[in-house]
Amino acid sequence: MDYKQQALEKHSEWRGKIEVVSRAPLDTKDDLSTAYTPGVAQPCLEIAKDPETAYTYTRKGNLVAVISDGSAVLGLGNIGGLAGMPVMEGKSILFKRFGGVDAFPICLDTQDEDEIINTIVNIAPCFGGINLEDISAPRCFTIERALIEKLDIPVFHDDQHGTAIVVLAAMINALKLAKKELKDVTVSISGAGAAGSAICRLLLSVGVKDVLLTCSKGIIYKGMDGLDFNKKELAEVTNKRGIRGNLADAMKGADVFIGVSKGGLVTGEMVRSMARDAIVFAMANPMPEIFPDEAKKNGALVVGTGRSDYPNQVNNVLAFPGIFRGALDVRAKRITEKMKISAAYALAGLVGDKLSPDYVLPGAFDERVAPTIAKSVMDCAQRERE
Amino acid sequence: MDYKQQALEKHSEWRGKIEVVSRAPLDTKDDLSTAYTPGVAQPCLEIAKDPETAYTYTRKGNLVAVISDGSAVLGLGNIGGLAGMPVMEGKSILFKRFGGVDAFPICLDTQDEDEIINTIVNIAPCFGGINLEDISAPRCFTIERALIEKLDIPVFHDDQHGTAIVVLAAMINALKLAKKELKDVTVSISGAGAAGSAICRLLLSVGVKDVLLTCSKGIIYKGMDGLDFNKKELAEVTNKRGIRGNLADAMKGADVFIGVSKGGLVTGEMVRSMARDAIVFAMANPMPEIFPDEAKKNGALVVGTGRSDYPNQVNNVLAFPGIFRGALDVRAKRITEKMKISAAYALAGLVGDKLSPDYVLPGAFDERVAPTIAKSVMDCAQRERE
Repeated sequence: MDYKQQALEKHSEWRGKIEVVSRAPLDTKDDLSTAYTPGVAQPCLEIAKDPETAYTYTRKGNLVAVISDGSAVLGLGNIGGLAGMPVMEGKSILFKRFGGVDAFPICLDTQDEDEIINTIVNIAPCFGGINLEDISAPRCFTIERALIEKLDIPVFHDDQHGTAIVVLAAMINALKLAKKELKDVTVSISGAGAAGSAICRLLLSVGVKDVLLTCSKGIIYKGMDGLDFNKKELAEVTNKRGIRGNLADAMKGADVFIGVSKGGLVTGEMVRSMARDAIVFAMANPMPEIFPDEAKKNGALVVGTGRSDYPNQVNNVLAFPGIFRGALDVRAKRITEKMKISAAYALAGLVGDKLSPDYVLPGAFDERVAPTIAKSVMDCAQRERE
Repeated sequence: MDYKQQALEKHSEWRGKIEVVSRAPLDTKDDLSTAYTPGVAQPCLEIAKDPETAYTYTRKGNLVAVISDGSAVLGLGNIGGLAGMPVMEGKSILFKRFGGVDAFPICLDTQDEDEIINTIVNIAPCFGGINLEDISAPRCFTIERALIEKLDIPVFHDDQHGTAIVVLAAMINALKLAKKELKDVTVSISGAGAAGSAICRLLLSVGVKDVLLTCSKGIIYKGMDGLDFNKKELAEVTNKRGIRGNLADAMKGADVFIGVSKGGLVTGEMVRSMARDAIVFAMANPMPEIFPDEAKKNGALVVGTGRSDYPNQVNNVLAFPGIFRGALDVRAKRITEKMKISAAYALAGLVGDKLSPDYVLPGAFDERVAPTIAKSVMDCAQRERE
């Protein structure tokens, strides 16, 4: 049976991948009186007096909403909220499996930015954090920024920041092998959507100075026609040399290529045009921008993809469970830039002595990952409070 | 330790009464590929083609949102969404325990009717049903009606209909003991909020002809000053004899008293003024309108309360788990008036031969209750489709 048929059969057997269960016994009248009326009035009154006690008396402190409008689901595009639900359920169980976080899928029936923002603000009280998922660019930036402004719980668009954190971790390790420094390298990013934009911003904030961002219209530059607000912002801070051209031009002499765009965009020749010991993260799914063999044959030192059947899988599951675990445990109100950078270094550090061109990231089932990232986020939050 | 202290300690020990767990294994790379990428794309594509398949490939068909704005929580009043969360969590676990329904608490940060309606419509796709909870009257009527109109999944305000169904069941059995018929009795209801209004409407739709509804301003009558839209509607269909006065006047000669108002409102003398073999459901919590002993001493044949420490507890948990179980299983788009009536008769029927003045309703832990009600709802839905 091929994997597609198997996925359908399993999903139909499961009838949903999440389930809501009770943490309180409900076997006697006394149980009912404690967990429900009349006993339940007491925690209600305490929370009414002091909202912070919701973290003690309810699940709020361990509860994350996985919210999508279904406008950019996986590689499937705009299939709508309901059709995105299998992904949001999947994400929810990954939260539980890897981070011990109770996550619940919320699939929206609107794709209007203001409606999405209002709706999320309105349902926020019972959650300790909001994970935005599969929302198309540039709407995702507007929505996330508004929510961060309005809410006092962490709001995290995983397609942006989860990807950016794992890419940065992989790059930190790959650059050790290439014996290059973040501040010295030229990075060429293909794709200026949610992931590409966030990777770009995180690299700049960690000290990379030369980033070229390429979208379907070519290398983005200051003053380029037809840029949306997000690309305009990025045009201000990237492409300092004012290079114009296409992806092939953007890759010439680059130390690192990061693809979050479309399968097959990169040729062996383009990899050959990069600097010595080139690093290639070709993360388009299921078909990467260039396959690992082809990239290596043309001089790449380290190659990563989004796939589990090649080495160096750049997989968001390495980041989001630990990020939220830490943020919830320390009751951070925001996921800050410093937390993301700490998380990336912590993740990179787990590779340790075993670092090699085929091992720049821990595997998805490495049980050290989430606790290590959680600790780095908590430590960072504590430093930021001081 | 008193029950209040115990409730606080237990809630703090539980740190939330709900938990979200996985129904799919996540132990191997293959598990990840099936439950998440790339396999998860397949059910997404199926749902995009045919939204009905969400009932097969996701949890939608077993998932109910327990939604409150915290405007009328238990007897505590308007404490807000977050402070109501222990109740919504409690309700959620009762759904699971008694109906096998996965229910999830949604506590709102708005009390604006339009915002509430929009928010619920926007998050509806992933749910198979909506249970509204603890929303103040008359806002609850506006909100529920709008949602029933806009959504094609069941919407059920439990404070209204859950209570009404259980009261009707209790009344059906109590009238057998009193040897009276629904169509012949005079019913006096104290309290014209969510519960009182819904009880009134359900009794009228099941054939009761003479209902007097009393609010804090006295017996409601057609043309009375200062009635909100809900009470105006009810004034049109109750009090056919045009009686004016207070609760004492409303109880004179009544066969049935139903109290969903305030503790201590009813005196022994008022019960004495009722018809022979009076039936008294005094459901104010924790202090009933009149205590059972006092009511019995003054001639009541059957007395029920909302409390678990007296016979005949009128407890919503007897209705909502089975109602939703049946509605979900038959994929009903609405909870119709006929379903509520069928449910009440099914619930009353479970008492059977053991019927006595101290046993007009099954107990909360009677495992026959939810399946029996579920079946009555499903049968009714099938009849209504024919």
